[in-house]
Amino acid sequence: MAIIPTYEIDLVKAKTSKINDVDFNNLTFGRVFTDHMFVCDFKDGEWQKPQIMPYQAMTIDPSARVFHYGQAVFEGMKAYKDEDGKVFLFRPDQNFERINKSSARMAIPEFPKDYFFKGLETLLKLDSEWIKPGVGNSLYLRPFVIATEPAISASPANEYRFMIICSPAKAYYNEPVRVLFAEKFSRSADGGVGFAKAAGNYGAQFYPTSLAQKKGFQQIIWTDASTHDYLEEAGTMNIFFRIGDKLITAPNNDRILDGVTRKSVIQLAEDLGIECEVRRVSVKEIKDAAKNGSLKEIFGAGTAAVISPVSAFEHAGDVFEIPEEENSYATLFKSTLLNIQHNLAEDKHDWRYEVK
Amino acid sequence: MAIIPTYEIDLVKAKTSKINDVDFNNLTFGRVFTDHMFVCDFKDGEWQKPQIMPYQAMTIDPSARVFHYGQAVFEGMKAYKDEDGKVFLFRPDQNFERINKSSARMAIPEFPKDYFFKGLETLLKLDSEWIKPGVGNSLYLRPFVIATEPAISASPANEYRFMIICSPAKAYYNEPVRVLFAEKFSRSADGGVGFAKAAGNYGAQFYPTSLAQKKGFQQIIWTDASTHDYLEEAGTMNIFFRIGDKLITAPNNDRILDGVTRKSVIQLAEDLGIECEVRRVSVKEIKDAAKNGSLKEIFGAGTAAVISPVSAFEHAGDVFEIPEEENSYATLFKSTLLNIQHNLAEDKHDWRYEVK
Ligand SMILES: Cc1ncc(COP(=O)(O)O)c(C=O)c1O
Ligand SMILES: Cc1ncc(COP(=O)(O)O)c(C=O)c1O
Repeated sequence: MAIIPTYEIDLVKAKTSKINDVDFNNLTFGRVFTDHMFVCDFKDGEWQKPQIMPYQAMTIDPSARVFHYGQAVFEGMKAYKDEDGKVFLFRPDQNFERINKSSARMAIPEFPKDYFFKGLETLLKLDSEWIKPGVGNSLYLRPFVIATEPAISASPANEYRFMIICSPAKAYYNEPVRVLFAEKFSRSADGGVGFAKAAGNYGAQFYPTSLAQKKGFQQIIWTDASTHDYLEEAGTMNIFFRIGDKLITAPNNDRILDGVTRKSVIQLAEDLGIECEVRRVSVKEIKDAAKNGSLKEIFGAGTAAVISPVSAFEHAGDVFEIPEEENSYATLFKSTLLNIQHNLAEDKHDWRYEVK
Repeated sequence: MAIIPTYEIDLVKAKTSKINDVDFNNLTFGRVFTDHMFVCDFKDGEWQKPQIMPYQAMTIDPSARVFHYGQAVFEGMKAYKDEDGKVFLFRPDQNFERINKSSARMAIPEFPKDYFFKGLETLLKLDSEWIKPGVGNSLYLRPFVIATEPAISASPANEYRFMIICSPAKAYYNEPVRVLFAEKFSRSADGGVGFAKAAGNYGAQFYPTSLAQKKGFQQIIWTDASTHDYLEEAGTMNIFFRIGDKLITAPNNDRILDGVTRKSVIQLAEDLGIECEVRRVSVKEIKDAAKNGSLKEIFGAGTAAVISPVSAFEHAGDVFEIPEEENSYATLFKSTLLNIQHNLAEDKHDWRYEVK
């Protein structure tokens, strides 16, 4: 492997590319990774010189804190290519700020902004072939931080690893999803870590979600842990409800992830003259609206799925099918977002970030 | 390295022992590990043949689920040696059952009982020199399971690794601790994973605990997430309150770890004729009891610390110092437990498990 020293990042290029082994029309989310990865270690109180190297397994001590205490956070973002071959990120500053908010809550040292952006950009330029043009194609980027210090005392580690790995993706959920409103299980509580992209928040959802799936529902919409009366968000998406012509979504708080797609939808709604209320949404209100026919749509919003329409929900044994809406907001927001992301529409809020 | 095939476990012995490098009088918890570790992988729908090998770093893909979604559980137990060199575990059946309860909640396949016990026992026999006799000395055992499948889809993994690593230990907290009753942060909620030894529960406590430490309190006693009015447990210990001559401890529920030390203390209290109420304990009750002088003791109970007396607590700006109690229950339970664990007292409940 040739070592190409750059002024800021140690770079070891992959000798050969795996790209020809990949069927880009049949991608399962998160299984295939590009040729390179970004790695930066924290020790002796500071982040060390970042490295880019061939994507590979790593060596880590079995006593590393991440294995025992879940001291780990992550981000999810995407790179898009337009027809001219230009590469874009979507509001990457938001992901940068959020990973550091997550890190602070998990007692992980914050990562420097220039390393984050320089790392992302260098990696994307190296693996640019992996980003396919065409709406719906993207390269999913996974920055994450894990506690690597080899010692199992239950306290914050002194050593960490920040990494970025990249996986080519098609839109995550293509079919409308059937969801279950949580009645007993909970995802997070006030004073907890629900607002952070902390690793443990996700593993904790696998079992309740698998029970939902056995009942024919692909996802759970979480409710507040205290009363289960208010709807919060799904496992990897924020949730919007459309009653009549009005959108409603839950406010951010300790328990809910401050989603980039959510805040973009709220802004787009304003741009498009669609009323959007950010307030608590009760299960009762949504069930009543479903009964009286005013519930027009429910959809999820998140980087992986973009916009994911919900076709039915279940609560307390009642199943409500949501009739397909002709002038669907979900479709409108999805195409508006995708067009901005893929440089096919005007970007009046400066959300696109070109990787040059 | 010589490969010694056994009928059930693939065994690779360490060529040399690290034991002479270790100062057993100056051990920091969880930093030094014995010569061997136990490893068993789950793939193709089943647990593969277990292995014991020299303790070493392992190779793992950066996309392994444990790094991203905290799909990981663990246990904490100890081995003790008596003056005749006999080795004992303390109620290991409880840890075995609990790790599988934790696994079920985290959508991890259960581990077979014979592998668990055969693994532990073989490992302890190999590393028996690391268990030092004498009350207060022990070998801390850390069984844990991590999701290793290299794919970042947010769903349960198909591949796992079960491991046991061992670290020689002195009693964890020797000094009485000052604690803070949680007012804003929370550890777990109903319907969540607080009752499981899920990795993410622990990392989530590091930041609030570091804030407490800055204020001079080593630990937090968590309160219920909904109201913060009821006391639950500490980060790695269940909590007992002594008012007058009566003990009180919170009941088990979704949010509280069903501690082996806790249940042993409850049994010992019965044996010793000490009244012990298992019921909700309010912050107000404890503050009132501290004010009127009837609060005699607070202590934590857990495998690592055994029994850890609390010398002061803080809540809503009020600090209460707990005067030292001459006929301390904490001291009584600690010596009673240690004597049973070290084969110095009668074991009428069959808690000792000899490793032969
Ligand atoms: C819990 C949770 N909610 C919502 C989202 C959507 O956030 P974003 O739009 O920033 O991807 C995600 C995914 O990132 C998530 O993990
Ligand atoms: C959250 C929590 N509570 C209580 C305990 C005490 O349990 P045990 O007595 O089984 O060690 C532990 C430690 O294992 C723990 O992690």
